[in-house]
Amino acid sequence: MKPAALADAFERVRRQTTELVAPLAIEDYVAQSMPDARPAKWHVGHTSWYFEEFVLGREDVRRGPVRPEFREIFGVSDAGIPHPGVVSRDRGVLSRPTVAEVFEYRRRVDDQMAALLEGEFSEGVREVVVLGLHHEQQHQERLLADLKHLFSRNPLYPAYREAPQPAGAPVPPLRFVSGAGGRVPIGHGGTGFAYDNERPRHDTWIVPFQLGSRLITNGEYREFIEEGGYRHRSLWLADGWDALTAGGWEAPLHWVRQGDGFAEFTLGGLAALAPEVPVAHVSYFEADAFARWREARLPSEFEWEAVAADCCVAGTLLENGDLRPEPVPAAASGGASAPVQLFGDAWEWTASAYLPYPGFRPSGRFGQSGGRSMSGRMVLRGGSCFTPASHLRASYRHVLRPDARWQATGIRIARDG
Amino acid sequence: MKPAALADAFERVRRQTTELVAPLAIEDYVAQSMPDARPAKWHVGHTSWYFEEFVLGREDVRRGPVRPEFREIFGVSDAGIPHPGVVSRDRGVLSRPTVAEVFEYRRRVDDQMAALLEGEFSEGVREVVVLGLHHEQQHQERLLADLKHLFSRNPLYPAYREAPQPAGAPVPPLRFVSGAGGRVPIGHGGTGFAYDNERPRHDTWIVPFQLGSRLITNGEYREFIEEGGYRHRSLWLADGWDALTAGGWEAPLHWVRQGDGFAEFTLGGLAALAPEVPVAHVSYFEADAFARWREARLPSEFEWEAVAADCCVAGTLLENGDLRPEPVPAAASGGASAPVQLFGDAWEWTASAYLPYPGFRPSGRFGQSGGRSMSGRMVLRGGSCFTPASHLRASYRHVLRPDARWQATGIRIARDG
Amino acid sequence: MKPAALADAFERVRRQTTELVAPLAIEDYVAQSMPDARPAKWHVGHTSWYFEEFVLGREDVRRGPVRPEFREIFGVSDAGIPHPGVVSRDRGVLSRPTVAEVFEYRRRVDDQMAALLEGEFSEGVREVVVLGLHHEQQHQERLLADLKHLFSRNPLYPAYREAPQPAGAPVPPLRFVSGAGGRVPIGHGGTGFAYDNERPRHDTWIVPFQLGSRLITNGEYREFIEEGGYRHRSLWLADGWDALTAGGWEAPLHWVRQGDGFAEFTLGGLAALAPEVPVAHVSYFEADAFARWREARLPSEFEWEAVAADCCVAGTLLENGDLRPEPVPAAASGGASAPVQLFGDAWEWTASAYLPYPGFRPSGRFGQSGGRSMSGRMVLRGGSCFTPASHLRASYRHVLRPDARWQATGIRIARDG
Amino acid sequence: MKPAALADAFERVRRQTTELVAPLAIEDYVAQSMPDARPAKWHVGHTSWYFEEFVLGREDVRRGPVRPEFREIFGVSDAGIPHPGVVSRDRGVLSRPTVAEVFEYRRRVDDQMAALLEGEFSEGVREVVVLGLHHEQQHQERLLADLKHLFSRNPLYPAYREAPQPAGAPVPPLRFVSGAGGRVPIGHGGTGFAYDNERPRHDTWIVPFQLGSRLITNGEYREFIEEGGYRHRSLWLADGWDALTAGGWEAPLHWVRQGDGFAEFTLGGLAALAPEVPVAHVSYFEADAFARWREARLPSEFEWEAVAADCCVAGTLLENGDLRPEPVPAAASGGASAPVQLFGDAWEWTASAYLPYPGFRPSGRFGQSGGRSMSGRMVLRGGSCFTPASHLRASYRHVLRPDARWQATGIRIARDG
Repeated sequence: MKPAALADAFERVRRQTTELVAPLAIEDYVAQSMPDARPAKWHVGHTSWYFEEFVLGREDVRRGPVRPEFREIFGVSDAGIPHPGVVSRDRGVLSRPTVAEVFEYRRRVDDQMAALLEGEFSEGVREVVVLGLHHEQQHQERLLADLKHLFSRNPLYPAYREAPQPAGAPVPPLRFVSGAGGRVPIGHGGTGFAYDNERPRHDTWIVPFQLGSRLITNGEYREFIEEGGYRHRSLWLADGWDALTAGGWEAPLHWVRQGDGFAEFTLGGLAALAPEVPVAHVSYFEADAFARWREARLPSEFEWEAVAADCCVAGTLLENGDLRPEPVPAAASGGASAPVQLFGDAWEWTASAYLPYPGFRPSGRFGQSGGRSMSGRMVLRGGSCFTPASHLRASYRHVLRPDARWQATGIRIARDG
Repeated sequence: MKPAALADAFERVRRQTTELVAPLAIEDYVAQSMPDARPAKWHVGHTSWYFEEFVLGREDVRRGPVRPEFREIFGVSDAGIPHPGVVSRDRGVLSRPTVAEVFEYRRRVDDQMAALLEGEFSEGVREVVVLGLHHEQQHQERLLADLKHLFSRNPLYPAYREAPQPAGAPVPPLRFVSGAGGRVPIGHGGTGFAYDNERPRHDTWIVPFQLGSRLITNGEYREFIEEGGYRHRSLWLADGWDALTAGGWEAPLHWVRQGDGFAEFTLGGLAALAPEVPVAHVSYFEADAFARWREARLPSEFEWEAVAADCCVAGTLLENGDLRPEPVPAAASGGASAPVQLFGDAWEWTASAYLPYPGFRPSGRFGQSGGRSMSGRMVLRGGSCFTPASHLRASYRHVLRPDARWQATGIRIARDG
Repeated sequence: MKPAALADAFERVRRQTTELVAPLAIEDYVAQSMPDARPAKWHVGHTSWYFEEFVLGREDVRRGPVRPEFREIFGVSDAGIPHPGVVSRDRGVLSRPTVAEVFEYRRRVDDQMAALLEGEFSEGVREVVVLGLHHEQQHQERLLADLKHLFSRNPLYPAYREAPQPAGAPVPPLRFVSGAGGRVPIGHGGTGFAYDNERPRHDTWIVPFQLGSRLITNGEYREFIEEGGYRHRSLWLADGWDALTAGGWEAPLHWVRQGDGFAEFTLGGLAALAPEVPVAHVSYFEADAFARWREARLPSEFEWEAVAADCCVAGTLLENGDLRPEPVPAAASGGASAPVQLFGDAWEWTASAYLPYPGFRPSGRFGQSGGRSMSGRMVLRGGSCFTPASHLRASYRHVLRPDARWQATGIRIARDG
Repeated sequence: MKPAALADAFERVRRQTTELVAPLAIEDYVAQSMPDARPAKWHVGHTSWYFEEFVLGREDVRRGPVRPEFREIFGVSDAGIPHPGVVSRDRGVLSRPTVAEVFEYRRRVDDQMAALLEGEFSEGVREVVVLGLHHEQQHQERLLADLKHLFSRNPLYPAYREAPQPAGAPVPPLRFVSGAGGRVPIGHGGTGFAYDNERPRHDTWIVPFQLGSRLITNGEYREFIEEGGYRHRSLWLADGWDALTAGGWEAPLHWVRQGDGFAEFTLGGLAALAPEVPVAHVSYFEADAFARWREARLPSEFEWEAVAADCCVAGTLLENGDLRPEPVPAAASGGASAPVQLFGDAWEWTASAYLPYPGFRPSGRFGQSGGRSMSGRMVLRGGSCFTPASHLRASYRHVLRPDARWQATGIRIARDG
């Protein structure tokens, strides 16, 4: 990447964040609606603090702290007992700094970064900036998921952006597309950016399999509910049944019971449930139970990558002009010869636990610390309507606990070949 | 109270609320920093909803709902499973309605109320309006306590109102003033407003006692800490020791350890600990342990009332022009013949559990439901710097759980006569 | 008390404990069915450890430790972090020492005590032995309550002692007996043994009142249930409703739903619900809600004592030959002129919080530490079928948290005079 | 397996259970020291209930229930709300049936089974009996782990069986033995018994690796502790650090701090820590952190099986005459050319999450329900000193949550080849 290209990328990614928060009222920046979420204000500040801390504060850059007192608020600390107001699960307590102050802070960081990127800078700086931009894109995804959760908890059901719901169109029937199996290469092999957990590229052995031609829809999932899916314990993993019971689950997150049926809370507000739209906001446990009910299973992350490696990254992703942003139905003609919706719409839960690849070497610098999360989590593939398109790769491994539902997580089923 | 007087009182109390929130940034209205607290926005909306629900919505008034969809947000519901966003312990999730919308709602309620109070209205209306104004004054007290808690949790320690700390002046020595005991009347006997829990007026028998001449100061309390007060289990009630251990208490709430000593977070920001100022933000358990350490005890609510009944309600209370608002030191000449600081500065924990007076008849209407809280709570007397002066009486019984610390609660000791 | 009398009392109380555990299988000695309970083995050992620690180990006695390694197991420690196996809520983990070893330990303590009490001993020794015997009688009461809870949790519903259920006989109608009120003396005034919390004797002022002529029966309480008592939130204290909801209460503890009705688990096994028998195993919250439903209230402990002070301590108590032991119906002729069942059958919840009497001086030695429990608890009066008759007095104050149900706690209602 | 062979196996496995409980006092049968454990009494009863329920109660057998009222106590129920006394985490509450009654029940089941196995029986019966014997062997392992936990919680530290501690002998240095990698078959391929989760046999691809020549010893692990292993957050998985913090871990379970060092609680009682003995009672998190500290990693279950498939099942296992039973040091000459201690001593945590093999078909009958546990758990291989030798295979997959420490779980490290 050329220096000018880096400055462009910096400007583009940073602007994307600003555009994403444009529809918010000041009040919307403050609240945190669950422990895993963060206030919008914090996303805006934390992604700026990253560049202050890891670029501007470097020994070979030394542009000095912009707002050192914000470090405790927007930084990530590994050690010590934090001030009671800055524990992660409870950042909604911080009414200050105000939104205006946070944007002023962001602007000052951007100005210093722009000046830096206009001049000469080391390879080390370049690497950290690139990592920071990917880091910010991850926060863009979370920002949207967090806002959707926040608004869903409000009985007024505010809309993030008013947008027409896509007209209902028939989706193609669900088919199974065969995968050959055998020895296949897995992991990132290119020269572009990739996280440490996508490396090293290595071989694995896959038994022949069949992959569902498209994502599971709301309509198909509603059928699972209507046939008692949430009441038959034998369909569920033991931990899944415990999660269902503890959480009182009876439908995906953001489905709202209305009379005999369901509405769905979207970023466009409360809407009629669109049966053709891919189901989202289901946990791994729900995806797994649904697959079992269909006498199928979830694909492994290797099966998925074996198929997706040949496809270009395209689909209902962020930056594609649809700022609603919500999943959209598969085209009526899709999936006949090759699976569709592999990228975008909804992350696809895989049957793979999040574990290191053989020969994994964690990249210790700058908190790229996915390695410390390598227990108790499952891998998801393919990105969602909240994922910036330029952030995604076929080798990209997203990771969540199996009971997580607040991100746009959906289902593709598979079966033995 | 004449109709015009009621309209005046309405205007005066409602304006007081608006003045109290004037220093806030929009962000400050949203956050809720603990389960017992409420966002400032909610206080503003809830006190308006009261008049919409219980006055404008009456059958003999019928001015129709102003914003019926706000009932779920600002109302108090006894029944059913509330929307997950409107449980009391978690109102900080509601970023909407915006602050501007809440004030617009408040203005419309006020306009309708003003029109009503200008004309003729029934005695029933009058009673409910009076109750509503006292209700709003209770929320003014809580609003200040909640804001103090909110700002105290922020590592930036924002000030509610910058105000000079009172100059340190010597306080008079602590004396004990004798109370005769015998048969004394207790409870509200006048014709003015009082809550149901202050009635009926009845006799009780008091053994001769001695009451401390003034409130305990920060300096005296710091001595208790320095001599190991928080480490000697034998000084504490069993439940108190459990609360200390679970909460990690080592000083009053809002004291901030700095080096070897303490600073104190006030509504004016973080300040040096003023040793002459009355200690506040202690629980019943701390007050009780302090008294035991001083070889004294806390007074009963009857001992307190027997002394205070003869005093006029005056002291460091809200509406007295000090908008800091924080406790202030006793005058150097005070307490020689009669106790001082009986009203204002800090609520005084008594050794009395909150129980009904003999012949108590709960007033069931409009949620004056103190009767349902009559277990597990202790009585406090005398008001605090957060209490509107016109809200207080010698017979007024404030009630908190013994581990509560977020209100301005302090200590007066007593001993047997 | 003469020395010989003390030796007799020692032998009698110690034998009572041994007789109470006689029906147990070895397995029954081990289990602990709830945090407030203790295994039978622990009661047997702890009451022996008391004499080892506070009598035999005294400086003026020095008979040396019998089993010093048992101190950690049977002693009560105020300090330090206990071994994980000896925390009070979890003593059922200790399979060793075996029951045989514990009785051997008890026998050796008894032998040494008998030798001591045969000779000369100081007044200090006498006081501690007397206190120890009352301490043991308290554990006899708890032992029975704990065993009843233990067996009630077993789907086999074992009987502690098979005994015929008393034949159903009509009970007298519930009347109200008037109490004059005025200035009345309260507390222990005699020369015999009393706990520190019954002193000093002092005057209080009582408003005229009326006391229910007998205890509330199972039949009357069942009517409360059938008319929706457990579903009407307005009948309950706020904390009571929370306890009901959290615990899923729908009847007294030990009532077992069978078809449309209830059976009752007794120490004689599972039995048909006897409508004439006094209701027991209700919490303060249930007693209070029942009284409110009857448009009555619970008596204060002073009203109760004002009436009971003139009665002799007699009723369905332990040592009266009925080893079932369970409450029994009031005699058909009872309660016409004076209340009956004031002593025995079931402890009577009063409306009085547990607080010190004016001038209270805690007796610090030997853990007579009721003073540290003086918050969050209510007073009960009158003893139960589990209480040794020689342990009781009219001034005796029993103390429990308001949600406690595992002891034999019942209801007498009152109303204003 | 011939009929006579089955009757022999039945007698042998059942006798093994009886021998394992022979050292217990009656009291030891009752207690349950943690939610994952079960009282010894329950193991004895539950393994008998299995044959009553699934063999004697079969339609083609019909020998009628032996003690139908024990089903609620010893059975495993998937549905409904159980009696409060029979929830799994709290079986220590059940003092009845007595130990004598449980053994009488066991004897009657055995008599009926012996009669059945002497005659003709169907293939279906044979399969269920075989499964039942493996089921009982699993409970033998758990019985020993549960007893060790129970006794460890007792400050008297009782010994299960007094036995001399093996003399300290030098262990061979830790070497790494190379594994070739490539395409390797995994899973059970033979005709003998195996659980469903060991099938189908399938190929996988392994990158060249190196496997530690023996288990990690207490001495090596102590070094990890002394160099701050439990204090350096960067060594731990995020979930592991949370578990360490929440549990206050500072050493393996059953290590007891004594002065500056450690003793170890064993089934022979409290003993000096033997540095040559393999470390046991560590969680996955501890094993993983230790490996990271050694700049190594844990092996995958496939790496382990690729090496172990060629070895015979032999080692420090149950039935080998050592009834202590505890891990023993590796022979001084071991591990030079091939790894030693692959079987027995301590289960070896692998880096593999518990997931189904490709083509997995759960065997739905008789609760062989490992499939429902396939989330949140890790695989262990190789058996321990508590595992019956005849129960083990190279393809055997043991499964535990990553924070489990009460079984004999140890460490073998690996690294990339």
